[in-house]
Amino acid sequence: MSAISVVMGSKSDWPTVKEACRILDQFGVDYDKHVISAHRMPQEMFAFAQGAVAAGTKVIIACAGGAAHLPGMIAANTPLPVIGIPGQTKALGGMDSLLSIVQMPAGIPVATTAIGVAGAKNAALLALQILGITDQQIQQQIVDYRQQMHDQAVESGAHLD
Amino acid sequence: MSAISVVMGSKSDWPTVKEACRILDQFGVDYDKHVISAHRMPQEMFAFAQGAVAAGTKVIIACAGGAAHLPGMIAANTPLPVIGIPGQTKALGGMDSLLSIVQMPAGIPVATTAIGVAGAKNAALLALQILGITDQQIQQQIVDYRQQMHDQAVESGAHLD
Amino acid sequence: MSAISVVMGSKSDWPTVKEACRILDQFGVDYDKHVISAHRMPQEMFAFAQGAVAAGTKVIIACAGGAAHLPGMIAANTPLPVIGIPGQTKALGGMDSLLSIVQMPAGIPVATTAIGVAGAKNAALLALQILGITDQQIQQQIVDYRQQMHDQAVESGAHLD
Amino acid sequence: MSAISVVMGSKSDWPTVKEACRILDQFGVDYDKHVISAHRMPQEMFAFAQGAVAAGTKVIIACAGGAAHLPGMIAANTPLPVIGIPGQTKALGGMDSLLSIVQMPAGIPVATTAIGVAGAKNAALLALQILGITDQQIQQQIVDYRQQMHDQAVESGAHLD
Amino acid sequence: MSAISVVMGSKSDWPTVKEACRILDQFGVDYDKHVISAHRMPQEMFAFAQGAVAAGTKVIIACAGGAAHLPGMIAANTPLPVIGIPGQTKALGGMDSLLSIVQMPAGIPVATTAIGVAGAKNAALLALQILGITDQQIQQQIVDYRQQMHDQAVESGAHLD
Amino acid sequence: MSAISVVMGSKSDWPTVKEACRILDQFGVDYDKHVISAHRMPQEMFAFAQGAVAAGTKVIIACAGGAAHLPGMIAANTPLPVIGIPGQTKALGGMDSLLSIVQMPAGIPVATTAIGVAGAKNAALLALQILGITDQQIQQQIVDYRQQMHDQAVESGAHLD
Amino acid sequence: MSAISVVMGSKSDWPTVKEACRILDQFGVDYDKHVISAHRMPQEMFAFAQGAVAAGTKVIIACAGGAAHLPGMIAANTPLPVIGIPGQTKALGGMDSLLSIVQMPAGIPVATTAIGVAGAKNAALLALQILGITDQQIQQQIVDYRQQMHDQAVESGAHLD
Amino acid sequence: MSAISVVMGSKSDWPTVKEACRILDQFGVDYDKHVISAHRMPQEMFAFAQGAVAAGTKVIIACAGGAAHLPGMIAANTPLPVIGIPGQTKALGGMDSLLSIVQMPAGIPVATTAIGVAGAKNAALLALQILGITDQQIQQQIVDYRQQMHDQAVESGAHLD
Repeated sequence: MSAISVVMGSKSDWPTVKEACRILDQFGVDYDKHVISAHRMPQEMFAFAQGAVAAGTKVIIACAGGAAHLPGMIAANTPLPVIGIPGQTKALGGMDSLLSIVQMPAGIPVATTAIGVAGAKNAALLALQILGITDQQIQQQIVDYRQQMHDQAVESGAHLD
Repeated sequence: MSAISVVMGSKSDWPTVKEACRILDQFGVDYDKHVISAHRMPQEMFAFAQGAVAAGTKVIIACAGGAAHLPGMIAANTPLPVIGIPGQTKALGGMDSLLSIVQMPAGIPVATTAIGVAGAKNAALLALQILGITDQQIQQQIVDYRQQMHDQAVESGAHLD
Repeated sequence: MSAISVVMGSKSDWPTVKEACRILDQFGVDYDKHVISAHRMPQEMFAFAQGAVAAGTKVIIACAGGAAHLPGMIAANTPLPVIGIPGQTKALGGMDSLLSIVQMPAGIPVATTAIGVAGAKNAALLALQILGITDQQIQQQIVDYRQQMHDQAVESGAHLD
Repeated sequence: MSAISVVMGSKSDWPTVKEACRILDQFGVDYDKHVISAHRMPQEMFAFAQGAVAAGTKVIIACAGGAAHLPGMIAANTPLPVIGIPGQTKALGGMDSLLSIVQMPAGIPVATTAIGVAGAKNAALLALQILGITDQQIQQQIVDYRQQMHDQAVESGAHLD
Repeated sequence: MSAISVVMGSKSDWPTVKEACRILDQFGVDYDKHVISAHRMPQEMFAFAQGAVAAGTKVIIACAGGAAHLPGMIAANTPLPVIGIPGQTKALGGMDSLLSIVQMPAGIPVATTAIGVAGAKNAALLALQILGITDQQIQQQIVDYRQQMHDQAVESGAHLD
Repeated sequence: MSAISVVMGSKSDWPTVKEACRILDQFGVDYDKHVISAHRMPQEMFAFAQGAVAAGTKVIIACAGGAAHLPGMIAANTPLPVIGIPGQTKALGGMDSLLSIVQMPAGIPVATTAIGVAGAKNAALLALQILGITDQQIQQQIVDYRQQMHDQAVESGAHLD
Repeated sequence: MSAISVVMGSKSDWPTVKEACRILDQFGVDYDKHVISAHRMPQEMFAFAQGAVAAGTKVIIACAGGAAHLPGMIAANTPLPVIGIPGQTKALGGMDSLLSIVQMPAGIPVATTAIGVAGAKNAALLALQILGITDQQIQQQIVDYRQQMHDQAVESGAHLD
Repeated sequence: MSAISVVMGSKSDWPTVKEACRILDQFGVDYDKHVISAHRMPQEMFAFAQGAVAAGTKVIIACAGGAAHLPGMIAANTPLPVIGIPGQTKALGGMDSLLSIVQMPAGIPVATTAIGVAGAKNAALLALQILGITDQQIQQQIVDYRQQMHDQAVESGAHLD
């Protein structure tokens, strides 16, 4: 039983989603990960979403590309917050994924992050920030993580040539 | 039991979808119509899609706007052909609806028509053309309908002022 | 005499269209394939479209890129359902092909699929789903094909590393 | 027999196309005007395009909106220069019309002007500039017309308040 | 001290943001609301963001339009989750707001919702879903709210005419 | 003294423009070619455009990319027809070039062709079609060229494998 | 002799440009204003740009819409900084104006502001900020102006209802 | 103490920003350069912007990509003119960066240049043109630089093959 579930619509999303998992690993927060295709595994998707509360999940991260229905359809089947990562796409860069995920109708939100790898990393951080509301240790880890990012950014500026 | 099922994600799609129904009425082909929201009525959506073959449906028309998941999610749950109408939207004109419907991943097609009212009319005609493959009367009606459109177009050119 | 005709506007579309043909081969459904350019072979295009019903064709698949007129112009000349595949393009990714195919005026629908290879595969599947309305064997093949996709998607999730 | 033929895909294009005709009237150059729908009147479109040289036409102006196939399909059927006006559209502003007209494949050009009324006026002026290559009177009229535009622009600047 | 803070970049965002507040009122969850312009009140923005944890805030909702920097800049100054609502804009429909909010670089996520009013409603619901992770009453209210939406959607389908 | 002048805004446009020149070579029609930058050589641009009629030029082809002002500024300074080729661009694919060229205000048309190489070829063919109005030999060459394209397209269809 | 010159491509830009002038009036900084069309008044445009330094102008503000060549062509003819305001347009919202102005090739910059009225106001403020580099009074006025904006923004937040 | 400050949101912007620095080097104008991330170093960003006038800076150049808040947030904290360079991005080409920078609300302008390297070069030149208003030597250098560009453009035209 993990606090965070990470799902992707296809194994081809894994190189993107892996970046989210790396951050979760780095924070030492448990998560489970799944390939659940909205279109090829609709029953599993429903079962997953409808069982998430009972399974002890607190936040769901879902990545999909193109006509990306996975985050929104999971969101429609659970009262838990769902974070959507728009996959980058070959033809349209990911604009299709972004609009398919972010433009949800009133009633069922998906917390959308940036297209591709930056979005994957941010999905993990957002999930952690959400858990951090009531978990001081995680919130402190976020603060520390940002301090590291800050220090690296400062340091990087010393080496422009 | 109707050969054609017309579904829309929200009653707000009805002014668009009505244009499809008018054409089906004009052809005298039976159809049933439903509000089935992918996000607010996911169980009904699944039940509808999974029961469509048994119900004797042959073609499904689905209209939705924004992050328009209805046509694709119905398509994922039935082997019947699904026609998707992208609703026009206030902020982005319907580009969001269009990409959410047409950019389906390999495996689950949605037969997408134009954004808005033109797409609704064409969804009805496409459904009729599909039925017309094996129903000579309907195919003849399509031919006649086109002849009428042709004649009206010709006639309209006589009155440019 | 084949139930499905596959046409492309240029031989340069063949790598895309071949993916549609592979699926038709896999289903064991006969089809014929043609290069018919709307702009360089307009007479052949008209003859092809106007003769399709008499030739026993039931569904037409047409692929074109850029100012992609082929699917719509074929559709204007036959009462058969026409499926349009927007070719991916170098400058605009295929947005030009997509809008040229999907935004048909009321009266003449083109059943549009996704840009590029995913759209080609889905065009074949959509054609088969249409034939499957009245051909139980093909409909069963669709059901089986989806079961395979489902099983592969499930299986793929076991190997995330 | 007129040097310029003006065609539109639908009578609904007339308010736009009328602006082209007004300029031709102003220059006193003969033209004929027609509603010829690529999709609803394909036979007439072909006959028109293929007969244009014999009819003494020198330049063709064609306006259409959405999946705007008319200019390109006429161009494919005549060696005469064809000028395309992209109609403004409700959902996408005319971006669909523009891409459907301008993104012609190598071999068959369409001389595309701006979306909507400005494009209609410019289509007329472009046709006149083309005729003006070998007709000194028309070329002089262009020069005079520009002088008038110039003087009006200069004059307009005196009345900013 | 409220669990939710709602901020907007300009009073002109209030008609949009009010829809978020209505939902929070309906759920009976306390919130505070502020006009804090990233560009005209940068000091207040920093003070607000940096003081949010100490003030007992748990989730921040921020709405802005155009070059919408408010959500991202608040997010950069607090470890709390920040939800961003892209305001609809006159020239570009809100595409500018959406990209300015959602395309955050790796490290600082903003949980982005849809453009305009639907996004405002969903921002409120998302904030509530986040609080609901550890507040069973709020989670139950979400479940009940969805049941109401469901029932209204079902009911609405009975009155298509 | 050539009937056709080909200009480009930068030598970096030459790989694109060369395709136009190849077609003019193939037709045996004289042309001159120039690098004339609207922004770096404005005086030469004006002198070129204003002297074009006197130089015996009949049609001008101009290629530029990005904020592509060259075709429109030449058009503003000559009553001759100007054909604009939008260069493909790295960041935006050429959408910037296209809109900068095609969206000319009423009064000064630019005959715009497709983005990139296809547009370059078509610019040459369009210039030839314009000359062909009053030069039967060139018009016949266009007809022959199209016949060749037709035959090659037909032939290409025999080799799909 | 004014430090700031404000030019617009057409009198139809005046309602937008007036907002720039109002701010210059408010600051009590002299400016002159002109309609100078790049396409209808190219000679005047060149004369204006080339004479600007000698006339004592320090900053030029130029507004144009569609294929907006005015700012870039003025910039090509003066070493003074040129600020470009993209006019909002009917068909494409102003995306055409924006790309035509901002995507200048290396060598000739245009300092581009937002589309429409906000951009007009900001063009005036940017011009003042530039003059303020060496004019402490103007720089102080900018500081004061911002303080007023700040206070109004703060005040506006007290009246949300 | 340099007249020009060049800042970038991330060291990954350096290959772009370096092109600006090269031009400043070539002109022999002092500048300082910094990595200052709006999101990872907000305090430093504020300190930098608020201290710029006192530090003797006259013009600030800022480059960022994606949800590019750096130029606008610096501009909000200094009365100095700020020039923004939109970084090219992988998914959307830089359209996200461009809109995030250019669409600033009324009150706080950012002088935006083109996406990517061309924009970086032009940011440097724009800064120099601004300094050149009151520094005749720099203005003369701009004039000379343009003469060189002119001569190179002319020369390049002699070598088309």
